[in-house]
Amino acid sequence: MVNVNDQIKKLHSYYSPKIIAQVNNEYVKIAKIKGDKVPWHSHENEDELFYILEGSLVMGLECQEPFTMQVGDVFVVPKGLMHKVSSNKECTILLIESKTTLHTGNVTTEITKSITDQKK
Amino acid sequence: MVNVNDQIKKLHSYYSPKIIAQVNNEYVKIAKIKGDKVPWHSHENEDELFYILEGSLVMGLECQEPFTMQVGDVFVVPKGLMHKVSSNKECTILLIESKTTLHTGNVTTEITKSITDQKK
Repeated sequence: MVNVNDQIKKLHSYYSPKIIAQVNNEYVKIAKIKGDKVPWHSHENEDELFYILEGSLVMGLECQEPFTMQVGDVFVVPKGLMHKVSSNKECTILLIESKTTLHTGNVTTEITKSITDQKK
Repeated sequence: MVNVNDQIKKLHSYYSPKIIAQVNNEYVKIAKIKGDKVPWHSHENEDELFYILEGSLVMGLECQEPFTMQVGDVFVVPKGLMHKVSSNKECTILLIESKTTLHTGNVTTEITKSITDQKK
């Protein structure tokens, strides 16, 4: 058993998803975001769920106006859709992603973490 | 986009999971539990994730001492394992279950709801 709130306290780096559970083919992850370093990217074959635990997150979607997600909001980015998330202030999110999902898609930047890193 | 806290306010029945999102092959559901009407059951091929949002939940597992889950706790019941959840007081949970999962497994009781009902 793991406690989400305890895990959040242990998150000391931004843009560094931490896997807290796995269920069927999905990982449940938590991450802190502050700033706009997440690149535009997509996941060709996988949906990605965002659930806001603390703060607010700006969700940018291809060809759409960005919108702001608040605490408790859940949004699923459908597979194949280009997206970019950012936050002016610190924001804590819970993610549900397939085990095969690369968190920055096929784009590799300074923030990109391997699944091995996400399990630490 | 859906807000978990708003959806919780709309939950008026116990033991009646409501699907709030789908991501890949999984449904995200919320449910309120009060009492011990959930029967012992298992899901032969599917894990089931429990995340406590409000209150506390007693998790009973086959051949193990039951334990109590508090707010923020996440536990995954592995596929095939008999389990039973209960709560003396009202408890609100978030579930991640495969789309194929029957919420009371192969056991049908007065609380069993179809996926169609869980989408209402």
